[in-house]
Amino acid sequence: MNIAFIGFGKVASTLVQLVNSPDITFLTSHEKRSKDTMDLIKESEVKDCPTLKEAVENADIVISANSPSNAVEAALEYGKYCKGIFLDLNNISPKTALKINDLTENFVDGAIIGKIDSKNPILYLSGKNADKLLFLNDFLSVKVISDNVGDASNLKLLRSSYTKTLSVLLIESYRLAESLNLEDEFFDILKLTEGDDFKEKSLSRINNTLKSTKRKSEELEEILDCYNAQDLEMVGAALKKLRQFEH
Amino acid sequence: MNIAFIGFGKVASTLVQLVNSPDITFLTSHEKRSKDTMDLIKESEVKDCPTLKEAVENADIVISANSPSNAVEAALEYGKYCKGIFLDLNNISPKTALKINDLTENFVDGAIIGKIDSKNPILYLSGKNADKLLFLNDFLSVKVISDNVGDASNLKLLRSSYTKTLSVLLIESYRLAESLNLEDEFFDILKLTEGDDFKEKSLSRINNTLKSTKRKSEELEEILDCYNAQDLEMVGAALKKLRQFEH
Repeated sequence: MNIAFIGFGKVASTLVQLVNSPDITFLTSHEKRSKDTMDLIKESEVKDCPTLKEAVENADIVISANSPSNAVEAALEYGKYCKGIFLDLNNISPKTALKINDLTENFVDGAIIGKIDSKNPILYLSGKNADKLLFLNDFLSVKVISDNVGDASNLKLLRSSYTKTLSVLLIESYRLAESLNLEDEFFDILKLTEGDDFKEKSLSRINNTLKSTKRKSEELEEILDCYNAQDLEMVGAALKKLRQFEH
Repeated sequence: MNIAFIGFGKVASTLVQLVNSPDITFLTSHEKRSKDTMDLIKESEVKDCPTLKEAVENADIVISANSPSNAVEAALEYGKYCKGIFLDLNNISPKTALKINDLTENFVDGAIIGKIDSKNPILYLSGKNADKLLFLNDFLSVKVISDNVGDASNLKLLRSSYTKTLSVLLIESYRLAESLNLEDEFFDILKLTEGDDFKEKSLSRINNTLKSTKRKSEELEEILDCYNAQDLEMVGAALKKLRQFEH
């Protein structure tokens, strides 16, 4: 079986390492790629085809793992050459997933939960052909949600809306506690209901959020753009608050 | 040692059961009490004095466990007869704690975290005389926060602002998940980062909040009233959202 990658970054190179089988050959191409990507291709167990078109044409599965902004373009340019399954792992919105579904045959909507190079990444899939990718369970956790393209992307956004808004709530509560000189007690008292790792987890969430307020804001904007923003007052407030921290 | 109760409801009767020592006598009075309270007094190991004034005058520790709205009045009426420590357990705001501090000698600000009749209630105390109540550690968990009257009440409000706002965020996220037919997957996916009991805990928080939206709204209002509401956008959004559920 041949698996081709459109885009060859961290997701692709990690999948090549994880999905280690004599029956599987990975394909990609250095065509129009940066020096860093070419280095990564050379270091990985992947066949470097002269063109990406050739890699895609010869693949049973095509994995688009580029960037959200290039996802539609990649599907538009290479989807037509794909005879097998077209799996998108670009962190796209449900709307974009439906768009790509129109541009490709046998589309599968995919979302990686957790970092791909973390201990236990989980690959959530949805779409009519998602079941055909269940063999990947031999190499990493794969969960098929439903036949509906968009559900994997929806689930990723749902999770994101909860965790990112929670992080902003943590920032607000922590700052109030700090202003009262009660930050240690705040963590102690909440440990009782939120678990022993509450302090460690909360500080890590607060720091991660404050480190990249612009990106987090954009992600919250995408959520409000994707769903009925009127019903998402908490996400709206989190976005408003986060913007105050942007420079 | 004599401990007198102003107000004799669940908190007082549970404390009488917990603080079980031959060296301690509990006092209260049926004066101006309802039939239910009089029944509770009869069932409890407490000495029923002819008047509350007499109970308070003879006490080393007076515990005011009435209701937030009666806390100041109780202190005003009986504080002057109290020769020992005056401990308030009325779930009052930090502002009210400072007010009562002016009305009584040897005031201790107290907050019970968790329900008093739960498995492990914790009594948080603050104020110059709080240390003198550490002997209660023989009977239940007692933590002294600081010398500052108001800190125990602040900590209770801080906790409340986080947990109640979180509950509203859970309602929002859950409803979005429901609208996408992904509520089971929402819980499954968040279990990975939020702990195995995430679903059970979240549903219980959602139900508790929706069962008493009016009371929860009032508690959020109190928080906004007590601190700089402008800095508490998340609490503000939670209050706004909760009010939509009120009938």
